Amino acid sequence: MSFPVSTRRLLVIAGTVTLVMAAMAGAVIAEDTEKSLLERARGVFNPLPDHVRVDDYPHSKDRIELGRQLFFETRVSVDGSNSCASCHSPSFHGADSRAVSIGVHGQRMPRNAQTVFNTPLLVAQHYGGNRHTVEEQALKALTSPFAYGNKTFEEAEGRLRALGYGPQFAKAFPNENAPVTAENWALAIGAFERTLLTPAPFDRYLKGDTRAISREAKLGLEKFIGAGCAACHYGATVGGQSFQKFGITEDYWKATGSVEMPQLKGRDMGRWHDTKKEEDKFIFKVPQLRNVAMTPPYFHDGSVDRLDDAVRIMARLQLGRQLPDDDVKLIVAFLESLTGEVPKHFATVPALPVAPYRN
Amino acid sequence: MSFPVSTRRLLVIAGTVTLVMAAMAGAVIAEDTEKSLLERARGVFNPLPDHVRVDDYPHSKDRIELGRQLFFETRVSVDGSNSCASCHSPSFHGADSRAVSIGVHGQRMPRNAQTVFNTPLLVAQHYGGNRHTVEEQALKALTSPFAYGNKTFEEAEGRLRALGYGPQFAKAFPNENAPVTAENWALAIGAFERTLLTPAPFDRYLKGDTRAISREAKLGLEKFIGAGCAACHYGATVGGQSFQKFGITEDYWKATGSVEMPQLKGRDMGRWHDTKKEEDKFIFKVPQLRNVAMTPPYFHDGSVDRLDDAVRIMARLQLGRQLPDDDVKLIVAFLESLTGEVPKHFATVPALPVAPYRN
Repeated sequence: MSFPVSTRRLLVIAGTVTLVMAAMAGAVIAEDTEKSLLERARGVFNPLPDHVRVDDYPHSKDRIELGRQLFFETRVSVDGSNSCASCHSPSFHGADSRAVSIGVHGQRMPRNAQTVFNTPLLVAQHYGGNRHTVEEQALKALTSPFAYGNKTFEEAEGRLRALGYGPQFAKAFPNENAPVTAENWALAIGAFERTLLTPAPFDRYLKGDTRAISREAKLGLEKFIGAGCAACHYGATVGGQSFQKFGITEDYWKATGSVEMPQLKGRDMGRWHDTKKEEDKFIFKVPQLRNVAMTPPYFHDGSVDRLDDAVRIMARLQLGRQLPDDDVKLIVAFLESLTGEVPKHFATVPALPVAPYRN
Repeated sequence: MSFPVSTRRLLVIAGTVTLVMAAMAGAVIAEDTEKSLLERARGVFNPLPDHVRVDDYPHSKDRIELGRQLFFETRVSVDGSNSCASCHSPSFHGADSRAVSIGVHGQRMPRNAQTVFNTPLLVAQHYGGNRHTVEEQALKALTSPFAYGNKTFEEAEGRLRALGYGPQFAKAFPNENAPVTAENWALAIGAFERTLLTPAPFDRYLKGDTRAISREAKLGLEKFIGAGCAACHYGATVGGQSFQKFGITEDYWKATGSVEMPQLKGRDMGRWHDTKKEEDKFIFKVPQLRNVAMTPPYFHDGSVDRLDDAVRIMARLQLGRQLPDDDVKLIVAFLESLTGEVPKHFATVPALPVAPYRN
């Protein structure tokens, strides 16, 4: 192929520009800095595991599929309105985008719903951490006056039987005489939830693909570790592994514009509501930060709408730092690298048993 | 290939049995009877159209996709709880399986939700028929105190803008200066709903594949026409094309065990609630019967759980007939041949704009 001279010159210029741009993008962080940052990151974070640990939870496909159905099943709640998916929706990256969730009878719940993704890897469930495993959370939701509103487990079990779930429970829990139990409801839902992992660009980075996240994300990662955020937000779930006081250097109440929660009869005092121990006042589970960019609003009361504001407030209240705007921007870029995809088997809503709900 | 004599004999016997069984299944209805039944059916029913009539509704892909998102969007309702999908769910064949639906603030709605499938083909929307098109239904839902609870269309439009839907409305409604309007919300949702057609085995039958439905379904079809059901349940949607009094030969109130509806300040009197005309008392839109086997409970108040009971009651109250149990069974088999599949783009829940809802 031959080009007139003017065109050839243009092509040469274009080629040079491309090379320079590539060099700028690739080599902005020097190779040794790149390597040492990755090493520091690996010291603090782990990639998500690839799959459910079947040794710990030998769940059959039948059990996971039953759990998937139960997750979307509204008719186990007392007014037929609420399912797990009401607060943990495929449309909102496993959360519900509301400041606080809505329960049965249209009640406002006391706290913000966190994403259901990756939660089996957390130290505990809920902001108060008053549910240890995802199974315990699913079990106790049945008789929570907010979530499902059943008076007893038997009431919930009666609903499951009336809906015709018997044969599916029998398949999911073979060798059991009466498999339609609240405990098996919880095991099935837990089995499903244990499949809801959301690997993200940051996992590819941790595994050695340093081009998986942007330059800004890497600089943000450095700031995130350097500023002390990683002291609480560490591990595969970037948080969610420990409990911490919200408002160490300042009162979160004043800083976030929180309001009193009528359901908690006043101010939200975290674990104290469950333990009544003085030392548990304002102690909350540290939230995981996976998918945080997709799940506003923020904090246990959903009082903050924007991620950059949440970063600023956390730095101030927990670390006593006034972060410069540029640092906040970079940290947000890092947090965006924690966004994974909504699992397909979660976004595809299952058909549920054909049975009427009398309300 | 060669077989020992004993095996060959077995194969011959097996072959004969297969032939006899095939003959039994295929020829139970004589060919001329088969032909005349198909002709009678074609005189009363039509197959569903293959696609949205794009001449009437030239909807772009962008508009349909926007409508799909809006259909699942809870944050346009006053408490962030309700979307179209709350009452028209992929899990329940486009309905919600409740006797009566649940609206904002956990309110019980006055009537049972019908499936959203194939509704653009109906003479009107709702049991009262007080919404003509699917677009009018979507529009008026915004300010219904039950459905979305907005005081004005402007309030709903403000919510849509705050959620960041502006650019999508601009793409779906090009050449408009201010596209985020309640009218365009309705057009987009209508565009999506016009794609929710559910062809069923009965359509293949009507198109000439007489093996598409079972022998029982065909005998049921004959009974259905013969008993007079098709006088009201006709056309592509097997009903939904006209209005009729519920309870012609007997009072439906006594027959179905209906209860008073506090939302209607007493007994449900059908169209009368909208028109206040004496002749509209107890007049309801005749429901379509497509997917009826998948969408219990039945009637405008969801008072009847089982399809066979619904068939019995309809025969008695509308036609003055006591149908023998065998006929009821056959009619139910026919009705089951009207079940289509949940469209895939309906069962796959869309991701929605990342924006917090302050409740």
